[in-house]
Amino acid sequence: MTAHPRLSLNQATVRKATLAQAIEAAVGAGYQALGTWREPVQEVGLDTAVSMIADSGLRVSTHCRGGFFTVPEGPDRRASIADNIVAIEETARLAAAGAPGSRPVLVLVVGGIPEGSRDLVGARARVADALAELAPHAAAAGVTLAIEPLHPMYATDRAVVSTLGQALDLAEPFDPAVVGVTVDTFHVFWDPQVLDQIERAGRERRIATYQVCDYATPLPADVLLARRYMGEGVIDFALLTRAVEATGYDGDVEVEIFNAGVWAAPFDQVAERTAQAFDQTVAPRLRTPSALA
Amino acid sequence: MTAHPRLSLNQATVRKATLAQAIEAAVGAGYQALGTWREPVQEVGLDTAVSMIADSGLRVSTHCRGGFFTVPEGPDRRASIADNIVAIEETARLAAAGAPGSRPVLVLVVGGIPEGSRDLVGARARVADALAELAPHAAAAGVTLAIEPLHPMYATDRAVVSTLGQALDLAEPFDPAVVGVTVDTFHVFWDPQVLDQIERAGRERRIATYQVCDYATPLPADVLLARRYMGEGVIDFALLTRAVEATGYDGDVEVEIFNAGVWAAPFDQVAERTAQAFDQTVAPRLRTPSALA
Repeated sequence: MTAHPRLSLNQATVRKATLAQAIEAAVGAGYQALGTWREPVQEVGLDTAVSMIADSGLRVSTHCRGGFFTVPEGPDRRASIADNIVAIEETARLAAAGAPGSRPVLVLVVGGIPEGSRDLVGARARVADALAELAPHAAAAGVTLAIEPLHPMYATDRAVVSTLGQALDLAEPFDPAVVGVTVDTFHVFWDPQVLDQIERAGRERRIATYQVCDYATPLPADVLLARRYMGEGVIDFALLTRAVEATGYDGDVEVEIFNAGVWAAPFDQVAERTAQAFDQTVAPRLRTPSALA
Repeated sequence: MTAHPRLSLNQATVRKATLAQAIEAAVGAGYQALGTWREPVQEVGLDTAVSMIADSGLRVSTHCRGGFFTVPEGPDRRASIADNIVAIEETARLAAAGAPGSRPVLVLVVGGIPEGSRDLVGARARVADALAELAPHAAAAGVTLAIEPLHPMYATDRAVVSTLGQALDLAEPFDPAVVGVTVDTFHVFWDPQVLDQIERAGRERRIATYQVCDYATPLPADVLLARRYMGEGVIDFALLTRAVEATGYDGDVEVEIFNAGVWAAPFDQVAERTAQAFDQTVAPRLRTPSALA
């Protein structure tokens, strides 16, 4: 088996796999890269995870995920900031252990409106504060924080950052090597400004990672699990991928699918089907950099 | 019973009511205004509906709804345009029959991506084309077409217009008396640009109607029915209502709630509860124009 040289399996796509199983599925299907998640890494411990990644020969495309820092000042916020500093350290070590071309990128899902609050404006201000607090840690570790705008249907309970433009505004005070953005087709395809904002993200050198999966209606009862294989929904991957490519982004492209059916399938089958869907929808629009070919 | 003089009962809030029952519920709870829907109007026939509205003493705040014109050219598109011309005529006649202060406003839900298509850009272009085709009819009838941006979770199956900014861009080529926008708290509260775009909508004299209801998570299995009484969710009505008021908008404020529980309740109770929720959340931020007091 081979997979496209820029395709990365985001570990959330095989949500029930251990780190060992995710590595096995990726390697078995010919992937060159993996996007790690914190929980399976912590399950084996960071030192062991680092060894496993080094032994796998895979690149690490991102580490998922930090964030969830919209709560007001107090013990919960301090705990969140401390946990994000741990996530930065994990990101640096995993990327250093990965094959050449690994990217020390920590994806940030910033968090929703705190329970009982109606203050969306305040929650957003606290995201800016948290970035200012975490940026020196990220810079010291050589890690890029990748703010992920989430689809607005998650604005209240998951991420008060809802558009790429808003993510770029939040990133603006910082060095692009330290604070960038995640471009995820599922979350941004609907945005009338998406092409302009992808172009802006490229101009401002903020695209830290590009993630793909599809969107279809009707949505499932749990809207968090609405993500689909590319080609199963309404997203125009040619349009969005061309726009990202036009910025000069030449890093890995992660497939991240939250979907109960995908999670129930055997990991090797998921890895293969993901690679096939990628070949049909995204790959034809990608350059293959000579470094990865 | 009295209700706030600027409160209007959108007929969708009592979805199972006939026009007669909706009028009875509104009058019984002391409302001065009703937002009509096409289906219950057509059920009794337009002439009868016009007489009923005239006899009721209610203002007509809007007529809901036209739109659904994103399909490519062909018989389906022609049928949609023809039906929208009928809706314009209904709007003009109902508003003329309503009490002084009635507004000949036709709310437009523009439609989603046509079945089997991935061409969001094309669907949006066809919205612009449909507006250009309908605007002369609206102008001749003295009707304002009120483009309604819907929450992005409906972008694929219901409305490819997802933000107030996008609606205003679509309205721009037209006289504000002919093409305006609907500002509905449920659909726009999440938008990081919402306050700027409300200010812009006022400056461009485009606010044709202001609708309110609340948003809460988790969403119900059918996300179309996620709308709630004001105060039951996370929307900051003070913030948004102050912004709308600051533009000088002094028309009716409609409450429009799609919710299975609300639809199952007795109409008179729904009308009263709506008025109470309005008094607690929206009314404190409203001016009461002397013409309505």
